[in-house]
Amino acid sequence: MAKELVFGHQNPDTDAIVAAKAYAYLMNQLGYDTEAVALGEPNGETSYALDHFKAQAPRVITTAKNEVDAVMLVDHNEPQQSVADIAELNVTHVVDHHRIHDFNTSDPLYYRAEPLGCTSTILRKMFIEHDVEIPAQLAGLMLSAIISDTLLLKSPTTTEQDKTAVVALAKIADVDYETYGLEMLKAGTNLDDKSAAE
Amino acid sequence: MAKELVFGHQNPDTDAIVAAKAYAYLMNQLGYDTEAVALGEPNGETSYALDHFKAQAPRVITTAKNEVDAVMLVDHNEPQQSVADIAELNVTHVVDHHRIHDFNTSDPLYYRAEPLGCTSTILRKMFIEHDVEIPAQLAGLMLSAIISDTLLLKSPTTTEQDKTAVVALAKIADVDYETYGLEMLKAGTNLDDKSAAE
Ligand SMILES: [Mn+2]
Ligand SMILES: [Mn+2]
Ligand SMILES: [Mn+2]
Ligand SMILES: [Mn+2]
Repeated sequence: MAKELVFGHQNPDTDAIVAAKAYAYLMNQLGYDTEAVALGEPNGETSYALDHFKAQAPRVITTAKNEVDAVMLVDHNEPQQSVADIAELNVTHVVDHHRIHDFNTSDPLYYRAEPLGCTSTILRKMFIEHDVEIPAQLAGLMLSAIISDTLLLKSPTTTEQDKTAVVALAKIADVDYETYGLEMLKAGTNLDDKSAAE
Repeated sequence: MAKELVFGHQNPDTDAIVAAKAYAYLMNQLGYDTEAVALGEPNGETSYALDHFKAQAPRVITTAKNEVDAVMLVDHNEPQQSVADIAELNVTHVVDHHRIHDFNTSDPLYYRAEPLGCTSTILRKMFIEHDVEIPAQLAGLMLSAIISDTLLLKSPTTTEQDKTAVVALAKIADVDYETYGLEMLKAGTNLDDKSAAE
C-alpha cells in the first residue's frame, strides 16, 4: 500500500495536530502506511500539550504532491483550508466535525463526519470500533484536543459524547483533566504574560 | 425530536429503496423519528425483492419541505440526484458509497461514506456498531441491495466487506443467496419476457 500523509488544517489548532497523529496511528495499526504531518507549527497551547505528554510535533509541510499521491484529511475538508496543492492529490479518507464545503472527489472515499465538539472525540470512537487500544500518551493528546475545541467542555458545541470521551481519555492518560485543562488553556492564551504586562 | 424523511436517489435502484428502509429503522431504534420514503416507484428487481420478503414499498415523494425541515440521504449525496427541493432542506445525515460532489452544508452533520460496493454493506456495520439487531425481513432486503449493486459479488466494485455482509445477511434472512440472487437479478432484467419475445 502506497504511503499517505495525514494532516489537519492550516494554522493548526490542537485538534488539527493531534487528530492527525491519532488517525495516522490508528491507520498504521490497521495496516496502512501513513505519516502524520502538519500545515504549520504548533501554537502555544498545542506545544504545552505536546511537552506535557512528551510527544513530538509533526513535521511541517507546505505541499504534499512532491511526496505522495494520496492524503487523509482530519479536522477540515474545505480545500482553501488544506495543503496548497490539494487539487492535485487524491483524498482517500476524511475524519471531521465541520460543515462540508467545496469538497469534491472524483472517486468514492472514506468520509466520517459527526456533529460533535472535536475530531478527536470521533477518533476515540473509531479506535473502539476497530478494537485498537489508545496508548496513554496519545490519550493525553486527544484529551487536550477535546479540552481545546470545547473550552473544557463549556462551549456550545460540546456534546455528551465529548464529555464521555474526556473522562475515558483522562483515565487512560492518568491526569486530572480539570487541573490539566486549565493549565493547557492558560498556556494557549499566554495568560501569565498578559497578567505580567497589565 | 422533529420528524425527518430518509430517502435514496431519483430513479431508485434496490439499494436506494432498501438503504432508506434500513437507515430509518436503525435511526428509529436509536430514538430518532424518521420515515423511509422514495423518489420513485421500485423497479422490477426491487419489486421482486420486496415481494419475496413480504415488505412494503416506501411512499413516493416529489418534494420534502412541505412535510419536514430536515432529511437524511442514503445512496447519494449530489443535489441533482436528490429530491427536487433539496436546496431548501437541512441535510442532517448521509450514508453513501459514492464520490462526494456538489454537496455543501451550512452546518456540521453526520456523514458516513465508505468505498464499498453498496450502502447496505455500510449500514450493516452501523447496526453492529450500535448493537441493534437486524430483523430477518430487513436482512433479506439488505442482502438484495448488495446482490444488486455488486451483481452477485461479481462487479469490480465488490469488496471483501460486501462478501462478508452477504454471507451474514443470508444467514439471518435464511436464504440461499446464490439461488435467490440469480432469481432477483433475472426479475430485474425481465429475462423471462425477453426470452419469450426472442
Ligand atoms: Mn481545528
Ligand atoms: Mn476540531
Ligand atoms: Mn443506487
Ligand atoms: Mn448503492
